[in-house]
Amino acid sequence: MKIINDSITISTRGFNDLKDLTEILHEKLKNSGLRQGVLTVFVQGSTAGVTTIEYEPGLVKDLAELMEKLIPSSRSYHHDERWGDANGFSHLRASLLGPSLVIPFSDSKLRLGIWQQVVLVDFDNRPRQRQVFLQFLGE
Amino acid sequence: MKIINDSITISTRGFNDLKDLTEILHEKLKNSGLRQGVLTVFVQGSTAGVTTIEYEPGLVKDLAELMEKLIPSSRSYHHDERWGDANGFSHLRASLLGPSLVIPFSDSKLRLGIWQQVVLVDFDNRPRQRQVFLQFLGE
Amino acid sequence: MKIINDSITISTRGFNDLKDLTEILHEKLKNSGLRQGVLTVFVQGSTAGVTTIEYEPGLVKDLAELMEKLIPSSRSYHHDERWGDANGFSHLRASLLGPSLVIPFSDSKLRLGIWQQVVLVDFDNRPRQRQVFLQFLGE
Repeated sequence: MKIINDSITISTRGFNDLKDLTEILHEKLKNSGLRQGVLTVFVQGSTAGVTTIEYEPGLVKDLAELMEKLIPSSRSYHHDERWGDANGFSHLRASLLGPSLVIPFSDSKLRLGIWQQVVLVDFDNRPRQRQVFLQFLGE
Repeated sequence: MKIINDSITISTRGFNDLKDLTEILHEKLKNSGLRQGVLTVFVQGSTAGVTTIEYEPGLVKDLAELMEKLIPSSRSYHHDERWGDANGFSHLRASLLGPSLVIPFSDSKLRLGIWQQVVLVDFDNRPRQRQVFLQFLGE
Repeated sequence: MKIINDSITISTRGFNDLKDLTEILHEKLKNSGLRQGVLTVFVQGSTAGVTTIEYEPGLVKDLAELMEKLIPSSRSYHHDERWGDANGFSHLRASLLGPSLVIPFSDSKLRLGIWQQVVLVDFDNRPRQRQVFLQFLGE
């Protein structure tokens, strides 16, 4: 059993920017030489999240509109009053979605569905450089 | 340390159909012979999710009504315009809930609460056969 | 590779009470002597959840208000009619947020961002004693 720690840096535009990580995860798994185990994907920061989605332009828009409906960016939050950074909505969206995902792999393949992509969603109100930590644990 | 890969196939009716996986997970853990470690439950597909809930008929209805309120099935989504499969709401619900759950076990027992069941929620707009991947990692 | 099972008991006031677990997790990791692996945090019970947030008083209030907006405590749920415990909203909030979080660590450090705290959120409608199960798996 072996642990491989890795991380990727991703430039985002903020405002619900969705980045498809699937290809890079497949590649990193291949390079790891591991056959079975778990991959933990964890975004460092409190205004971004990780989930799976069918990555296509329609749903990318739908998810942004859903977040705007559930947690509007237009209203003011207590966080904004205290800190003046006006991204209370970004924090709330991130806490709701969650910062991490654990994906099992076997036969050297991530056990994702065909239309199921792993995405980073950046909820912040400005462009960001995101650190996504990756850890493969397996054999 | 040992890895056991397994999967279960579950027939659902779609439309927020909730399936209680707890008994089968307990049984699989027992059969694995493992005493401590983590169980990763991962549903393959982008219109279903996994979480925990007190599995009883009232909450089953409540969760369906909550999803209908937050992400109505009646309105049209960009996904539907592009692909014509009319299940944009199913994708959004699945992305919000998340596809996976990691449950630690020790003393050969899943560390769930008494009223805390592990459920698959199928958000699709038709009956489905679902593949749920299970991976035990432990000793 | 080694597994360390642990748990903490936390007194909460219920009603979206947020407890910052970060310091205790750092300490437990330090005491474990492990350098790399995964920490699984899992709250036992169906009316509490675990996520990350920038832990500051503004966001603590914002998250409570968000939950009240999305899943009001004032209306009646099917769960309440059946069981009379009036905490249907608590169950739904918990299922939406999820009971667990997996945090990778390397170089003996949890890979959290600086403003990213691990929190237990108790959604129940009364004070509770919560068991949070912790499992370190690594080397």
